[in-house]
Amino acid sequence: MPAEAPIYDRVALIGLGLIAGSMSLAMRRGRLAGEIVGTARSAETRDIAREIGLVDRVVDTAAEAVVDADLVVLAVPVGAMAAVAEEIAPHLKPGATVTDVGSVKRAVIDAVGPHIPEGVHFIPAHPLAGTEHSGPRSGFATLFDNRWCLIVPVEGSDRDAVARLEAMWQGLGAHTDEMDADHHDLVLAVTSHTPHLIAYTMVGVADDLRRVTDSEVIKYSAAGFRDFTRIAASDPTMWRDVFLTNKDATLEILGRFTEELFALQRAIRTGDGEQLFDYFTHTRAIRRGIIEAGQDTDAPDFGRVKPE
Amino acid sequence: MPAEAPIYDRVALIGLGLIAGSMSLAMRRGRLAGEIVGTARSAETRDIAREIGLVDRVVDTAAEAVVDADLVVLAVPVGAMAAVAEEIAPHLKPGATVTDVGSVKRAVIDAVGPHIPEGVHFIPAHPLAGTEHSGPRSGFATLFDNRWCLIVPVEGSDRDAVARLEAMWQGLGAHTDEMDADHHDLVLAVTSHTPHLIAYTMVGVADDLRRVTDSEVIKYSAAGFRDFTRIAASDPTMWRDVFLTNKDATLEILGRFTEELFALQRAIRTGDGEQLFDYFTHTRAIRRGIIEAGQDTDAPDFGRVKPE
Repeated sequence: MPAEAPIYDRVALIGLGLIAGSMSLAMRRGRLAGEIVGTARSAETRDIAREIGLVDRVVDTAAEAVVDADLVVLAVPVGAMAAVAEEIAPHLKPGATVTDVGSVKRAVIDAVGPHIPEGVHFIPAHPLAGTEHSGPRSGFATLFDNRWCLIVPVEGSDRDAVARLEAMWQGLGAHTDEMDADHHDLVLAVTSHTPHLIAYTMVGVADDLRRVTDSEVIKYSAAGFRDFTRIAASDPTMWRDVFLTNKDATLEILGRFTEELFALQRAIRTGDGEQLFDYFTHTRAIRRGIIEAGQDTDAPDFGRVKPE
Repeated sequence: MPAEAPIYDRVALIGLGLIAGSMSLAMRRGRLAGEIVGTARSAETRDIAREIGLVDRVVDTAAEAVVDADLVVLAVPVGAMAAVAEEIAPHLKPGATVTDVGSVKRAVIDAVGPHIPEGVHFIPAHPLAGTEHSGPRSGFATLFDNRWCLIVPVEGSDRDAVARLEAMWQGLGAHTDEMDADHHDLVLAVTSHTPHLIAYTMVGVADDLRRVTDSEVIKYSAAGFRDFTRIAASDPTMWRDVFLTNKDATLEILGRFTEELFALQRAIRTGDGEQLFDYFTHTRAIRRGIIEAGQDTDAPDFGRVKPE
């Protein structure tokens, strides 16, 4: 992005976890905002943010944070969005844009939309980026580089305001696409929500097996299991809210998953090696596509740092 | 390892894929073998191995490779072990050790054991290391560093021969543990085989959904799905054989998995946020254990190389 002028004069970040923290650091890197104000519900999070200078100014309430802000980012768990929207509504500046970074979009639109006053633009969004870490110390400026941010305009969204938000996300390093809310929720159920639930389940099963001690599961995790534990280490509040608010799409994909799993289970039971081989060969091609699309590295084992 | 003398004068590698190739490179690094002879069933693999100098000498048959070898490593898919054992049996040197690197152990013992002549030591083993890549070009010398290799002595295994094989694996960079075959197969069903089957299934489901196009699944994979595709990109022949030969343990763990998944699915359907939150909180602790055990890095997102 050219750095002549910031895209927004004042940005308010509500919530100071991994995503908001990374946004703040990436906005500074790109000189995208005049001033970055931040707040979080927990006093401890606010104190840490002050201590490490995560944003330009930390305030105690969301209502205070949005005063005079040109862009307001709701970066709280999906289940907390309605209450925050209600709190900030009377304090929003006319012409401001309110956006969010939630992992589901239909539920956020239903929760936040009704609170947005006339003259304020509400443009939901979802950056597809993250790590298994959370909290105010977990952010980093390059989190969004080369990742996708899905913009989900609601009916009648102002095109200039949408273009400005897209420019912001591109300045943060992301590619942007527009998508409608229901399609977003289905795509994410496939690429994110169901995989997370499955990983949580597999880790839970391993932990629950008494004949295989915890220590064995942990020592011998390099054989595949550790990839599941990374996914299953993500923020529990965020994920609880995702499943509660993207219920239908997740249950639909889970149903497909179970059906498919039963078919493979049957192939194992009956010794149908050909079916297994064909299935495993086919899934390899998808991996190749992901590497070609620049969404992962071809380095073996994700290029994990080699032990010295 | 002290480098005064090699641990084995001549090592024969049967199969020249990821594991055997990495063993050869790590043996050279540690000067663990006097001469490394290798063979593979496919002429193309043998040609590549010759071209890149993967081993000291490439021969055309397994029977030829084992002549005068002090250590013979069966590094072929589990389903091919019996035929290889039958082929090499008449050519094995008295006092030699035959080992393998298969992902299941009971089936290998049943397939290979009966062919091993009197006076030859048969000591199954399984290095818990790998990447999603396969073939003669995929090996690297540090693959086993800080990973575990499970040694699975059969009844009456010669203790000196076991100690020598363990010293070899330690020289290759691994920690070693001994385990009996049935327990090994159960532990691996939890830490590796079931996670792989689940990952294959999830990737298959994603590919099969027509409303979510391939391109969307690939573009938006960074949200969790790409970790599954890495696992599901592993060698199809190897994994077919794993599931066919570790059928009972895999089906048992799959049963537990399905039971647990249904409980979480029910919690989503009924909106039981507390149950989801408790489950997701608990699984976080296991991740911590894996990092403390040195089996993964705490770097966010596995320390994937950041795009420039």
